[in-house]
Amino acid sequence: MLVVAEKEIGGLMTPEAAYDAVEAVFAAMAADRAYNFPVVREAIGHDDALYGFKGGFDGAALTLGLKAGGYWPQNQKHGLINHQSTVFLFDADTGRVAAAVGGNLLTALRTAAASAVSIKYLAPKGAKVLGMIGAGHQSAFQMRAAARVHDFEKVIGWNPHPEMLTRLADTAAELGLPFEAVDLPRLGAEADVIISITSAFSPLLMDGHVQGPTHIAAMGTDTKGKQELDPALVARAGLFTDEVAQSVAIGEFQHAIAAGLIAEEAITQIGAVVNGSHPGRGDAELTIFDGTGVGLQDLAVARAVVKLAQEKGLAQKVEI
Amino acid sequence: MLVVAEKEIGGLMTPEAAYDAVEAVFAAMAADRAYNFPVVREAIGHDDALYGFKGGFDGAALTLGLKAGGYWPQNQKHGLINHQSTVFLFDADTGRVAAAVGGNLLTALRTAAASAVSIKYLAPKGAKVLGMIGAGHQSAFQMRAAARVHDFEKVIGWNPHPEMLTRLADTAAELGLPFEAVDLPRLGAEADVIISITSAFSPLLMDGHVQGPTHIAAMGTDTKGKQELDPALVARAGLFTDEVAQSVAIGEFQHAIAAGLIAEEAITQIGAVVNGSHPGRGDAELTIFDGTGVGLQDLAVARAVVKLAQEKGLAQKVEI
Repeated sequence: MLVVAEKEIGGLMTPEAAYDAVEAVFAAMAADRAYNFPVVREAIGHDDALYGFKGGFDGAALTLGLKAGGYWPQNQKHGLINHQSTVFLFDADTGRVAAAVGGNLLTALRTAAASAVSIKYLAPKGAKVLGMIGAGHQSAFQMRAAARVHDFEKVIGWNPHPEMLTRLADTAAELGLPFEAVDLPRLGAEADVIISITSAFSPLLMDGHVQGPTHIAAMGTDTKGKQELDPALVARAGLFTDEVAQSVAIGEFQHAIAAGLIAEEAITQIGAVVNGSHPGRGDAELTIFDGTGVGLQDLAVARAVVKLAQEKGLAQKVEI
Repeated sequence: MLVVAEKEIGGLMTPEAAYDAVEAVFAAMAADRAYNFPVVREAIGHDDALYGFKGGFDGAALTLGLKAGGYWPQNQKHGLINHQSTVFLFDADTGRVAAAVGGNLLTALRTAAASAVSIKYLAPKGAKVLGMIGAGHQSAFQMRAAARVHDFEKVIGWNPHPEMLTRLADTAAELGLPFEAVDLPRLGAEADVIISITSAFSPLLMDGHVQGPTHIAAMGTDTKGKQELDPALVARAGLFTDEVAQSVAIGEFQHAIAAGLIAEEAITQIGAVVNGSHPGRGDAELTIFDGTGVGLQDLAVARAVVKLAQEKGLAQKVEI
């Protein structure tokens, strides 16, 4: 078994490698070559922890395994971040475990790569302004990945706690882009591409806010009850997601589905756009990508980082 | 992360340690201190493999994690056994991975320990003859674990392929017990305790075969469609299992339930007998334990072996 430690991931994995891995696995999913297993997610009744497994099999790349871990809200007392995960890869030809990889940074990179795939394929022509809703840990990864796939001229941002906006300003500066803090009506009116990455439980961005050709990557909603977008906004958009079943169950589109405003059949797997089997934006004014996060993304980036670690001699070989 | 290699398990783990671990976790399950997560089991469409995860949390012992792996029927061409699994333990206080342990021998030991728990608590008073149905790889583990918890005077056995009965004869000899090959009517009439451990898909042991006070550990059925016992035999027995939900869905009792011969409410978790909250055999002539195999058993024996490996300096410490 090869083991790649969490502390090595930052030096090994690049946004480029994460993007390529996630784009390829989305394409394999849409071509029915790769699928995700049912997700296990349990409130274990200890330290308020949520724990579970996201597994899958990519028959095109022969990637098999799972991400295991979860959310430990009291981890600060242990000097650790709340999200803790590990990815395990298995040999698809024998069932033997092949690798164990620290999954914390990989989770941030694969989530950012997913919205970047949607931006590459769905951003309106000539998009210049990137709007960021949310300024938490994940927002910086999102902005970096977006800037890699599209030439933006400006970043504007909003966060429920304005004191955190320095993260967006700092990240924009790192990318050589001007940054301006704005309110949500201005953000919706001026941004050509919007990434929402919050933990909100009620809509932040309303239908009336969004004007002109726009692509929205809604990345925050991964649980029943979470919500970032006005269902009326969703109802007038071209709809895309990573996995339709997860999108309508626990993703942003759960609410418009429950309200009867959209049909499941109207939602397209983003991989179909990557494959060229769906035209993508077409003449839609508004597109929305519901990024729910699937196990295959974790497996794809873990596989990529194991390869890089082997090349650089940073994969520990352990007998099991 | 501590890693205990498959090749070390045989030298570290004893049937005693496996028994103690499994008995304790069955008790915790019956006391609602431990529970299994939904099982993921997938035919991945590659090399006819079945792959999945069995996870759980024992809040009494603070054991958290999963067994991952499956069944690769073409593994002979790789010089490997068909069942391949690995157990991963997590720190219940932080969500960080704590150990990875080879799971192949552990699976055999925990399965044998389960039937042994049932025999210890449910064997008829003065039971002398052990009847073995099945002579595959797992049968030797079953016989050894049974002989450890009860003083048998003789072993009798039957197998669909008689040429394999040498395994039972050899194992009985190793235990200092006489062995005789018999047909199923004689086995049912003479054995006081019966262990069935086959991959049958139709009943082998019929109602008319079994006479006198008897305990049966039905260990072979772990999938929809598998079956070792006549439902009429099940219908007249005191019913015990490791986990009721799994027993009625994929265990031996699935058939008597489907036929309307027994009610789910009549099935008792074996841990309740261990706890003393259920009297066990009482005045029942016949008892049956349906051993379906739960993730918590795997976690319990893995936890025990990691402790033993640490004591003997055989746990590899790896940064992750």
